[in-house]
Order: sequence, then C-alpha cells, then structure tokens
Amino acid sequence: MAGRLVRRTRVTRFAADGSSIGREDSLAVEEPLEIRVSGSSFSVTMRSPGDDFDLVGGFLVSEGVVWDADQLASMRFCAGTDDQGLQTFNVIDAELSPGTAPPDLSLERHVYTSSSCGICGTASIDAVHKATHFSLGDDDTSWSSALLGSLPDRLREHQKVFDRTGGVHAAGLFSTDGELLCLREDVGRHNAVDKVVGWALRERRLPLRGTVLQVSGRASFELVQKAHMAGIPVLAAVSAPSSLAVEHAESAGMTLLGFSRGGGFNVYAGVHRITTPSPS
Amino acid sequence: MAGRLVRRTRVTRFAADGSSIGREDSLAVEEPLEIRVSGSSFSVTMRSPGDDFDLVGGFLVSEGVVWDADQLASMRFCAGTDDQGLQTFNVIDAELSPGTAPPDLSLERHVYTSSSCGICGTASIDAVHKATHFSLGDDDTSWSSALLGSLPDRLREHQKVFDRTGGVHAAGLFSTDGELLCLREDVGRHNAVDKVVGWALRERRLPLRGTVLQVSGRASFELVQKAHMAGIPVLAAVSAPSSLAVEHAESAGMTLLGFSRGGGFNVYAGVHRITTPSPS
Repeated sequence: MAGRLVRRTRVTRFAADGSSIGREDSLAVEEPLEIRVSGSSFSVTMRSPGDDFDLVGGFLVSEGVVWDADQLASMRFCAGTDDQGLQTFNVIDAELSPGTAPPDLSLERHVYTSSSCGICGTASIDAVHKATHFSLGDDDTSWSSALLGSLPDRLREHQKVFDRTGGVHAAGLFSTDGELLCLREDVGRHNAVDKVVGWALRERRLPLRGTVLQVSGRASFELVQKAHMAGIPVLAAVSAPSSLAVEHAESAGMTLLGFSRGGGFNVYAGVHRITTPSPS
Repeated sequence: MAGRLVRRTRVTRFAADGSSIGREDSLAVEEPLEIRVSGSSFSVTMRSPGDDFDLVGGFLVSEGVVWDADQLASMRFCAGTDDQGLQTFNVIDAELSPGTAPPDLSLERHVYTSSSCGICGTASIDAVHKATHFSLGDDDTSWSSALLGSLPDRLREHQKVFDRTGGVHAAGLFSTDGELLCLREDVGRHNAVDKVVGWALRERRLPLRGTVLQVSGRASFELVQKAHMAGIPVLAAVSAPSSLAVEHAESAGMTLLGFSRGGGFNVYAGVHRITTPSPS
C-alpha cells in the first residue's frame, strides 16, 4: 500500500545562492474519491488512497447519515477502469440497511445541512450545525494534563507518510490511559479524522467515550463537529482553534485544546475534564 | 474590520509541569458565508469575514462561472438578521450579467464538475479538472531564483492576523519585479486564494500573467487548479505539493515550487521559467 501513498518524482532544488541540482523527491499521493450512496453521487473528496471504506464510513457518520455499523449494508469499489483497463479504486458505493434513511441528495440539502432554512444569516449559521446522535454533556472522563501534553509527540512518532513527504495531516485517537487506538494520515485533514471515525464505526466503538482525538493542524469548526458527531469528548490540536470551533465545543460540552506543544497546551473549552498532579 | 477578524477569549494555559494559569488569547474569527447565484444557493464556505465580495468573485472564477468583471452584474449582502435584529453579513447573492451562463445547480453537477460523466474512476478524475479560459503554455515570463526564494519571508512579514492568532493561512500575489500586488489571510487556505483572485477580477487584471502566487501551506490539487483558472503561471508553496498538484501543474504548463524555505526551494514543474545569476 505504501506504493499508493508515496510517489517518487524528479525535482530541481535551488539553494539560496542560486545554484541548483536535480534530485529525487517523494510526493504524498492525492487522488479523488467519489462517494456514492445507493448508486447516487454524494461527494467527491481529494484524499490519500487507503482505508477508503473507513473514509466513507466516517464521512457518513460526520454527515449524520449513520451512527451504527448495522446501518451500513455494504460498501464496494465500483468497477471503474482507467485507460489501461485497470481498476482505479476511486469510486465507492455505500448501500444503507433497510430502515436507514438515505441522505437528501438535493443541492439545497447539500449546500445547507438543514433543508428547510430559508432565512439568511443566523439560519445559515445554524444550518452548518448538524444534529448529533451522541451527547457529550454527561461524559465524565477525566484526563491528566501530563498525558494530554505528551500526545503531539506520540502522534508525530507514528507519522510515517509525513516523514517521507512532509505533505500529510494526521489524526490519532488515544484512550484515557494513553493507548493509541487508531492513527490515520491523509493529504486532507478532514479525511484523516473521517478515517479514524470510520475505523471506530467498523469496530463498533461509537460513541467514542473515553477517547481524545489529537490532530496535527488547526482546530476548525468542521473538525470539532466531526469529533462531536462521533461522540469524542476531547479534541486537541497542535495549532490554533478558530472562534467557531471554540463556540461549538462549548455548546457541545466538549473539551478543546490548542497549541499543544512542548508538553503544554491551551484549554479553550471544557477545562473541568483535566486533572493535574497534586503538589507533593 | 479587525474586530471582525480577531476575537478575544479566556483560556487556561497548562505548562508541561501541570501548573496552569488563566489568560487572554486571540482567536481567528471563522464564520460561514453562503454564496448564492441569482438567488439560488451555490455553496457555503467557512471563512474569515472581510473581503467577502472578492471571495465570491474569486470562487466564481475558480468554478469557471466568470472570468471577466463584466460577467458579474452585482453582488449584495442579503438582508439576513441575527436574533438581535442585526445584519449578519453571512449571505451574498451574486447576479450574473445577461448572456453569462449560470452554473448548473444540480447536485450531480455540484459533486462532479462535469455533469455528463457516468463512468467510474478515470471519468471521476477527469471530472475534477475544470475547463480554464486562460492558457499558460505560452506564458514566457522568467523569474529570478533570488526573488522566488525571498517570497516566503515577504509573505510572512505581512501576515497581521497570523501574528495575533496563529490560526490563518495566507496567499500573496507578487509581480516579476517583486512588488506585492495583493495579500489575503483566511482561516481557509482556499479562501485566501479566492480572495486574491476576486481582487484581480475586480481590478480587471485577469488573466494574471506575470505574477507568482505564494501560499503559506501545502500545494494541493485544488490550489494549483485555482491558480490555473486565474491564469497565474507560477505557484509557490512553503510546504509540500501533492502528486496530483504536480501532475496538474505539468499538464497546465505551470511552474510549481514547494518547500520554499531559507531562500531555497524545490521546483516540481516548469523549471524553464526560472533564471539564476550568471557565475561571475
């Protein structure tokens, strides 16, 4: 699978003095994946190939279409071929189980998340909030600050594709005792999270109580929402959160960390879950 | 406008030894913007408020809807209000000029870019390539390696919102003699580029011959495509390009730089445009 994730290329490297040399370099592979639901197109995402069924499963959780593995009847690669007649593995069709409502595939629904809002502004903001099936307010897990401070380094240790290309994001799911449950890398930061959530869906671990999701980049509104949709109580980002990420974490009862570096971090919401060593 | 771009918040900072203090922090503001075309919803993007008309103009260029300022008849904020009755400035309606074809707003068209492809795989990949109105193959501008090597620092000097929040991406457009033509920061890296392109549309500078676009992050396929749609011959990224970014730059006749740091950079495509000082 490594051959699908990294591609060698020839580059010209210019130094600051204007001298240049040709050399080999490694690129993170980026390819489109079309996601279909019962044969109808739902989305196209640019992603790192691999763990594609998990990407689709996680995406469907993020979109509020499924929240239990039994709601997915099957997933398969469509038999698309390239101009050499080879399977491209770039289209997946997901079949929902009987009784699971298919997503509304109208553009109105796709652009908004709620189909019925016709009022500007506030309605538009409300519309980007998806309905979650898991509440976090009653999650009473506690987290040691020492453990949380150690996660960025632990994530970094496992970033194999990043080491070769410098071009991918990572998302790692850890338990309260620091066990790494699942780590995924992807050219798209949303995809890395969707692949982790899709793994959890398949492993029947949703909602992801007692876990923290550590991501390599910033914490946007959409990443907070994806964590919320999967029932993850703690999201930690190496870099900055946005204003809407903080607002959504607060309203969801989620703990949100940013600027996790060098063992320290900022807490933007849900500080009550964090425990510190008693002074000796 | 700075008040709309940065919001103060109260955070708890934990140090590596477990000690914590409360303090003020600045967040990059992230809000949804709904883009309508002639009253119909086209897209919702999460963006930094500000330069919103340019964001919409640049987005419409990126989507191949317009490529000349005369194709846009008007843009206005819809009269949406929040629960205090205040205008939210989060919905913009763009009216196209008579004779400009509106985008196909069917979901099929929205998910793909080409509406007619029904074949998996290759067709899906082809579909993400948009038709551009500007060709780059005959662009014969040349660029000094010293100038290109200096751009990341020049971009960084102007990142005012990043300085305060650490949470935004930047895109800067420079001329062949190194003049900074336009710089935009945004929580979304695609938006920063769209805002630059929308500025150029409004200033009637499309196609952007004789310019280089320096971006703060990685070079994805979508960023290469946005540069191509605006007729920008050179895209330079501080970090890594993806495989599809390199492939698209090659086929578009574009020059693509990555890992622009410390005055040096890698050239992944179109090295013929780069000149170096003659040895003395």
